[in-house]
Amino acid sequence: MTRFQSKLVDRLNPYVPGEQRHGNSVTKLNTNENPYPPSPAVLQAITAVTGDDLRRYPDPEAIALRKALADYEGVSVDEVYVSNGSDETLGLAFMAFFTGKKPLQFPDISYSFYPVYCDLFSIEPDPVALGEDFSLSLDAFSSDAGGIIFPNPNAPTGMAVSLDAIESLLQRYTEGVVIIDEAYADFGAESAIALVKRYPNLMVTRTFSKGRSLAGMRVGAAFAQAHLINALAAVKNSFNSYPLDAIAQAAAVASIQDETYYQQTTLRIIDTRVRLTEALAERGFSVLPSAANFIFASPGPTSPSAASLFKTLNEADVLVRYWNKPAIENWLRISIGTDEEVDRLLDTIDQAASVAS
Amino acid sequence: MTRFQSKLVDRLNPYVPGEQRHGNSVTKLNTNENPYPPSPAVLQAITAVTGDDLRRYPDPEAIALRKALADYEGVSVDEVYVSNGSDETLGLAFMAFFTGKKPLQFPDISYSFYPVYCDLFSIEPDPVALGEDFSLSLDAFSSDAGGIIFPNPNAPTGMAVSLDAIESLLQRYTEGVVIIDEAYADFGAESAIALVKRYPNLMVTRTFSKGRSLAGMRVGAAFAQAHLINALAAVKNSFNSYPLDAIAQAAAVASIQDETYYQQTTLRIIDTRVRLTEALAERGFSVLPSAANFIFASPGPTSPSAASLFKTLNEADVLVRYWNKPAIENWLRISIGTDEEVDRLLDTIDQAASVAS
Repeated sequence: MTRFQSKLVDRLNPYVPGEQRHGNSVTKLNTNENPYPPSPAVLQAITAVTGDDLRRYPDPEAIALRKALADYEGVSVDEVYVSNGSDETLGLAFMAFFTGKKPLQFPDISYSFYPVYCDLFSIEPDPVALGEDFSLSLDAFSSDAGGIIFPNPNAPTGMAVSLDAIESLLQRYTEGVVIIDEAYADFGAESAIALVKRYPNLMVTRTFSKGRSLAGMRVGAAFAQAHLINALAAVKNSFNSYPLDAIAQAAAVASIQDETYYQQTTLRIIDTRVRLTEALAERGFSVLPSAANFIFASPGPTSPSAASLFKTLNEADVLVRYWNKPAIENWLRISIGTDEEVDRLLDTIDQAASVAS
Repeated sequence: MTRFQSKLVDRLNPYVPGEQRHGNSVTKLNTNENPYPPSPAVLQAITAVTGDDLRRYPDPEAIALRKALADYEGVSVDEVYVSNGSDETLGLAFMAFFTGKKPLQFPDISYSFYPVYCDLFSIEPDPVALGEDFSLSLDAFSSDAGGIIFPNPNAPTGMAVSLDAIESLLQRYTEGVVIIDEAYADFGAESAIALVKRYPNLMVTRTFSKGRSLAGMRVGAAFAQAHLINALAAVKNSFNSYPLDAIAQAAAVASIQDETYYQQTTLRIIDTRVRLTEALAERGFSVLPSAANFIFASPGPTSPSAASLFKTLNEADVLVRYWNKPAIENWLRISIGTDEEVDRLLDTIDQAASVAS
């Protein structure tokens, strides 16, 4: 605390990312990183960057990357926005679309950065309860909300909503902007980018951190009609003109161009997700149906609790994510690693169960 | 314009960076880029980044880079902050220190991003006039200001203030935070980082874009006592947890470690600055005494006007910066390029003069 800081700093509750413990002995299943490296083409693109590329400012409009994304998604360049990770898009979008409006609605169990942005930008949060089975009913959002944001699939549940349900919401809700945060959509959810051309209040955000294995590179994207992209860009250009460096732009373009590689790693992750889901179910866990690169799982009544398992796993250098919050206090979020990493997780869970019994 | 945007978007006047025209025929002296590439050690560090580094999130605390900067500047790690370019530091610092306070004072001719941040964050700007010779008197800042920010050396004048003058200001001004924006300090100004330990309201910002030849990489830094760094980090962690990618962190560390290279390129730029200043003075220009990697120059009464020269140079693919604003309407800001680039600039100016006479 310092008398020099503004009052807004007093009210902040900053986001806390998952632990970044590294090392050969660590099985890191706590931040939904992709277990596979990015395409070799990405590493080649990075190596091809020259001293001249580095001494000069990058393209502030990131045209090459936006064009690659536009072609890939079947939209036009002025319907694409790119950013320093998708969190930066979200932060700027909260400013551009939700400040000075009625309360913002989002699922009460969801990405924990949303209420943080509300604190930062003085937006009233209005969390909407999930069903008892953790399902998200889009009917629960009010037609009178100042704005709506939800991840699809949702985090940390991994559960997706259908494109039909999204379209019903968009037909009914015209008051403010709807942001669909598709950080994890690469792993099974239906993308709403196809709806952008028909709904002027829809923005879809994506990231290169998960499906594209580029968490270390910080690249996010957003898709919306040009009038929303322009509003977002006006805020961005009043905050940081060049958020995306030259290497990040080149790496992201190369990633989009190697579709085969990306589809292979994504399918491997989905295979491992199925295997992990079945293995945990055999051990008495409840596992929510996941369309993401993580699962949300709750140990059965005869197993050690999620809190206890989290501690045991952590001590064994197997990192998963746990939140000590009422509705999810007996749940663990487990990122889908390689098959070997998942085996190590299961072995450690089995050891904990045998000690407890 | 869109009815979906918040009212704040209506009041924005986004920053406009210098033109990013590239190509072999372009002499680019308009965005104060370093004419020399970064150290070969930087390119080696970039090439050494692995797929594992890319698939994982970067260190959100950027400890290795902050430690390298702390050692270099003789401060402790908790007195160092790093960011996605120094503009990101400035944006977050405006939020952390200047919102909800009395008016913010800065020189009326200065970095044009400051009033943009004021618009974005609803901070009342209170510009302070430079002297007729474009000098900045720190005595002109009010002891009652909500905060003070100025570049040293100032932009676009290139003129520096002394460390003694800064210390006098800090002894007198204790009401709010003083940010000294040392983007160009590598080229001759006395750094105020040495004062950080003694003044709890001082923050000094730096960039790797100019002296370190890494504009394409987006790395900025700030130095202040830990209580200010913590307030800034609270805002950052409420906005974007991982703004600095893995490659940018590695590149910046490598840059700091190759001090010899950096000193050589800096000295070459200073030599060329002296030569350009003399050559323009011979041609009747007024040139302000610059401590930066650019000069601010005004053609003499017998020469074509700055506006006319800007147009002629632009058509000849020699890019410089011009602002059509009252006090500086007959001035050009010219980045210091290589000796060859400066020769091309002078040749084009000479041709324009011979056509005009």
